[in-house]
Amino acid sequence: MNLKRYLPILQWAPGYSRGDATSDLIAAAIVTVMLIPQSLAYALLAGLPAQVGLYASILPLVAYAVFGTSRTLSVGPVAVVSLMTAAALAPLAELGSTEYIAGAVLIAVMSGLMLTVMGILKLGFLANFLSHPVISGFISASGLVIAASQLKHLLGVQASGHNLLDIGTSLLDAFGDINTPTLLVGAGTLLFLCWARHGLKPLLVKLGLTLRLADILTKTAPILAVLITTLLAWYFRLDQQGVRLVGEIPSGLPSFTLPSLDTALWSQLAVSALLISVVGFVESVSVGQTLAAKRRQRIDPDQELIGLGTANLSAGFSGGMPVTGGFSRSVVNFDAGAETPAAGAYAAVGIALATLFLTPAIAWLPQATLAATIIVAVVTLVDLPALLRTFRYSRTDFGAMLATIVLTLVHSVEAGIIAGVGLSIGLFLYRTSRPHCAVLGRVPGTEHFRNILRHDVEVCPKVTFLRVDESLYFANARFLEETVIELVARELELKDLVLVCPAVNLIDASALESLEAMNERLSDAGVRLHLSEVKGPVMDRLKGTELLERMGGQVFLSTYQAWRTLTGHHSAMAPSER
Amino acid sequence: MNLKRYLPILQWAPGYSRGDATSDLIAAAIVTVMLIPQSLAYALLAGLPAQVGLYASILPLVAYAVFGTSRTLSVGPVAVVSLMTAAALAPLAELGSTEYIAGAVLIAVMSGLMLTVMGILKLGFLANFLSHPVISGFISASGLVIAASQLKHLLGVQASGHNLLDIGTSLLDAFGDINTPTLLVGAGTLLFLCWARHGLKPLLVKLGLTLRLADILTKTAPILAVLITTLLAWYFRLDQQGVRLVGEIPSGLPSFTLPSLDTALWSQLAVSALLISVVGFVESVSVGQTLAAKRRQRIDPDQELIGLGTANLSAGFSGGMPVTGGFSRSVVNFDAGAETPAAGAYAAVGIALATLFLTPAIAWLPQATLAATIIVAVVTLVDLPALLRTFRYSRTDFGAMLATIVLTLVHSVEAGIIAGVGLSIGLFLYRTSRPHCAVLGRVPGTEHFRNILRHDVEVCPKVTFLRVDESLYFANARFLEETVIELVARELELKDLVLVCPAVNLIDASALESLEAMNERLSDAGVRLHLSEVKGPVMDRLKGTELLERMGGQVFLSTYQAWRTLTGHHSAMAPSER
Repeated sequence: MNLKRYLPILQWAPGYSRGDATSDLIAAAIVTVMLIPQSLAYALLAGLPAQVGLYASILPLVAYAVFGTSRTLSVGPVAVVSLMTAAALAPLAELGSTEYIAGAVLIAVMSGLMLTVMGILKLGFLANFLSHPVISGFISASGLVIAASQLKHLLGVQASGHNLLDIGTSLLDAFGDINTPTLLVGAGTLLFLCWARHGLKPLLVKLGLTLRLADILTKTAPILAVLITTLLAWYFRLDQQGVRLVGEIPSGLPSFTLPSLDTALWSQLAVSALLISVVGFVESVSVGQTLAAKRRQRIDPDQELIGLGTANLSAGFSGGMPVTGGFSRSVVNFDAGAETPAAGAYAAVGIALATLFLTPAIAWLPQATLAATIIVAVVTLVDLPALLRTFRYSRTDFGAMLATIVLTLVHSVEAGIIAGVGLSIGLFLYRTSRPHCAVLGRVPGTEHFRNILRHDVEVCPKVTFLRVDESLYFANARFLEETVIELVARELELKDLVLVCPAVNLIDASALESLEAMNERLSDAGVRLHLSEVKGPVMDRLKGTELLERMGGQVFLSTYQAWRTLTGHHSAMAPSER
Repeated sequence: MNLKRYLPILQWAPGYSRGDATSDLIAAAIVTVMLIPQSLAYALLAGLPAQVGLYASILPLVAYAVFGTSRTLSVGPVAVVSLMTAAALAPLAELGSTEYIAGAVLIAVMSGLMLTVMGILKLGFLANFLSHPVISGFISASGLVIAASQLKHLLGVQASGHNLLDIGTSLLDAFGDINTPTLLVGAGTLLFLCWARHGLKPLLVKLGLTLRLADILTKTAPILAVLITTLLAWYFRLDQQGVRLVGEIPSGLPSFTLPSLDTALWSQLAVSALLISVVGFVESVSVGQTLAAKRRQRIDPDQELIGLGTANLSAGFSGGMPVTGGFSRSVVNFDAGAETPAAGAYAAVGIALATLFLTPAIAWLPQATLAATIIVAVVTLVDLPALLRTFRYSRTDFGAMLATIVLTLVHSVEAGIIAGVGLSIGLFLYRTSRPHCAVLGRVPGTEHFRNILRHDVEVCPKVTFLRVDESLYFANARFLEETVIELVARELELKDLVLVCPAVNLIDASALESLEAMNERLSDAGVRLHLSEVKGPVMDRLKGTELLERMGGQVFLSTYQAWRTLTGHHSAMAPSER
């Protein structure tokens, strides 16, 4: 049983049927065709030689097929992670240098180790600290930065930078150097891909294809663009016109690579590797869960960490770059009918064949074509409706989202994500440090108690029912103390104060001390402190503390009981209550 | 009114009476006598020349008298802040060098600025993030480190370090160099002070003194030790025996000092200054609140920030060191009968006179005497019962406390406090990320619902009432989703799921998306999602979201209403319910 848990392949491989194999092989063929340009493009985006993208699409797929729990997730280089890799390596090594490539390998290995260890320690919940608004804002902003970073390839100029400001100024400086043939190739590809996205599918359906086939063919439009522009580049010798091509890349399978053991480099890259791991994990899990839900399957987040961890380790040791489960490729795999992770392993074989036999053709591929495919892909990452929805629902969440977006756009991806996480945690703590408190009255004739400011309720001047809508812990302990002291100073007739605790899920040691201090002050002022509706787990812990011993009042099971005992209205109640 | 708020002196100065003045003058005389050795000792502890301690006990007291809200707090150098200052400066400058002294001035100025700005922005609540267990553990551990750091003065050897490990090894290395006369002075003072603490008061009472006078005289025992050892040192020329003395210090009032404007130094000291500010503020406020409560006075934490901020600014600009409200000196001031902050201002005059006329005598004071007074003072900081109490009440809080203690002891004060704060926030988030959930049943014959695992209650197999005991936010959004999915997979007859929300104080944007996703999945499984007991503020926000539109079920005011509507037991209920 346990072995099956850690090796999910054992869950599906024994029952693997001929039918499954057929479905998986078809899906693999489609995914392979799509993966080739995507892998090359994301390597380019990460500032790496094109073949590194291919290497990262072979062994990682096999590793994920063995250790991953999603049946349809397709693992490989993805846009956001590639951008983060480039941003992490930029300050450490010159673009394209041996050290730069070694840095990418090291990030993959470190990220693989981190993910695997987190999986073994079951730390998948850590990813929850990336709130939805932060991750959505981060991905939208990254999409814009990525699109901007590709403009230089489209224009055929030199430019650099990993945020909109740097990219913008460096593009403006290079504006005079625009290469017209490059622009024609790039803009042409861009227009074709945009059209394919909206116009190709209806056209194919009109030509008599089934909806599903038309859909899949539409998604392979990038490979068509790649084929055509490669042919054009070769036929017209476009490199002599200043069009930059992918150029010669070593043919053959990747060889075993050892990561650098330079501890200084490890510590310099640690934060980046961690952020890449977490962002990659969150992206992958949300894609995996969305797809699994559609087929009523489940994925196990902790095992996913191991799946992605081993995928990254094998990417690193085979000279690749950091990988994760990508959205577009997984959707293609899913739509093409993949039944098991074996589809991924078959696609790995497809990519391996490409590195063996297709490299001479790939050499003629214009970089502008790849840039156009990236731009078209990442523009879909920008999710404006999510921005609006968050703004309407909660200004606090929107604040964290906006900080993430602005910092990602104008500073760096890392600053954006760190600020987002820090701000969402800080704002949550701030909210809980000033909890909503309500003075309650009784809904006439019932056992229910409601906020006196919102409902028409009975009150008793000698007894105040105060509901605190938050767990009591260090951040709000003093706030409660002050609220109660002010209340007591205001209500001169007060004899009994009942803290109504259905929303108190925890009383920590700091809050306990505050309650004890509060009890002292109340008894000095001649007011008895009571508690009502204390939850089981909270009560278990309070038993045996000095608070309960010293408290002048009682602990009531229900607020209504407290009302009956303290207001002395027992006989005035409706007969139904007896 | 507003002026009075920001200048608390206006609250008491107009009504200042002759009686107040008499009380304040008496208290000031006693505090002055006590402050002189304490100021010298804490300057020594911070690695600063002795006069710096005196300088920090003049103007800051005047500033606090004008801006502070506590009537009895006594401001000046205190043990923990002095240790933190030494730890902050150690890596930057050589002990006792001009740069080192300038660093202390800069920390005082930065801390003054930070506190004042925090006060103006009303950020006093930030101090709440230092939980009681963390601050108590930190102060206990600091007490031990401080005591250990003074052993070298007691033994007359050279040693260094700001944690137990470093101090221990460096003391072991120097063990052969022990200077016997120094040890005799130091150990003698230590024994005298320990005896004074327990034996002097009963003796004085037996000799016929009133209890109060005996108490105050006991607390001035350190000054007696100072007088005697100074006389001994002078009479026997102990400096020629290797006993280190305070030595010649410039006589006269401090002169105006400008802090360094070196931005690199500012940024190097920023974190230390912030930690010193926060720790000093927390210590001062807790002392101030304790004393204020005894006389039914109040202090205003935000104005306290301004009081301490201006005190530190004036300490910095007069060549002093960081200051805060100290426990022992404030208690002496309180016990001696101080009525208003004017007592502090009078004590400032006393210290000023000392810098003018007593410096020749102070030159003969042995450092071992000061070390002994420090050790006796800080040992009271170690609070073992608090450790035990926290261990019994909550292992989580104890974990944060222990981490603080261990890191403070073996690494550094800054690491200790940062780890403590980080860990308490992290553990709080972890707890809230896996909230307590309870399936509820109805207490027979009532409108109350309780956990089916803890109470004997009625249930209905087609309707599940799930109470989540936590606000729903990003950290637990996915956890809830998984809990519900598992529940639905287990309860095959389930038709209606009611989320009982009295403990849900907040639903953030991430949790809203999770609820929407959960609603989709439930409706796919043929289960309707309902909500009950949604709080007013939460409901206000949910209105207008897609969740309410798409939800198959209803929102019930009470769980009992949901029970009546969904279980169809209406007619089966007790007649009292009609």
